[in-house]
Amino acid sequence: MPAFTATVTVRLKQGVLDPEAETTRQALERLGFDVEALRTADRFELDLAAADPATAEEQATEMTERLLANPTLHEYEVTVDRR
Amino acid sequence: MPAFTATVTVRLKQGVLDPEAETTRQALERLGFDVEALRTADRFELDLAAADPATAEEQATEMTERLLANPTLHEYEVTVDRR
Repeated sequence: MPAFTATVTVRLKQGVLDPEAETTRQALERLGFDVEALRTADRFELDLAAADPATAEEQATEMTERLLANPTLHEYEVTVDRR
Repeated sequence: MPAFTATVTVRLKQGVLDPEAETTRQALERLGFDVEALRTADRFELDLAAADPATAEEQATEMTERLLANPTLHEYEVTVDRR
C-alpha cells in the first residue's frame, strides 16, 4: 500500500486558558522581546500505509479523535502528504 | 508597525529518543491502528510587530534560539505571515 505521512496539529480552542503559553510569553518579555500574544500547539507526524490519501486522512482523523485530541478542549487539523 | 504572526516548529533532532512519541504510537496500536512511526513537535505562534517580514523572522529566530528550542536536542523552522 502507498505510504503517507499525516500531520495533525492540535491546539486549544479559543477561550481555553493556556498557562504554558502565557508563561513562555512572560519569559520572552523578561528577555527583552515584545510579543503581543503566543499560542502553542502540538504537532504529530504519523507515518502510515493506506490505499489512497482520503483513507489516510480518515485514519489519522479517527486516531486524533480517539487519542490525540480532546474534543472538549482542542481543535485540530489533519493534512496528508505522500511519503 | 505592521503586525506579523511567526510560526515556529520545534522538533527533536533525528536520533534523539522521543519516549512520548513512542508511548503514543503504542497507545494507537492498542486501539487497533497501524502506525509505522510517529514524531511529535511543538508549534509556537507568536504575534509580533516588526518593520518588515525579514525583521519579524529575525526576531522569532532569536527568541527560538534563546528560549523555545535547545540547540543540542532540537531543530526548528520559522515561517512568517502578515497578520
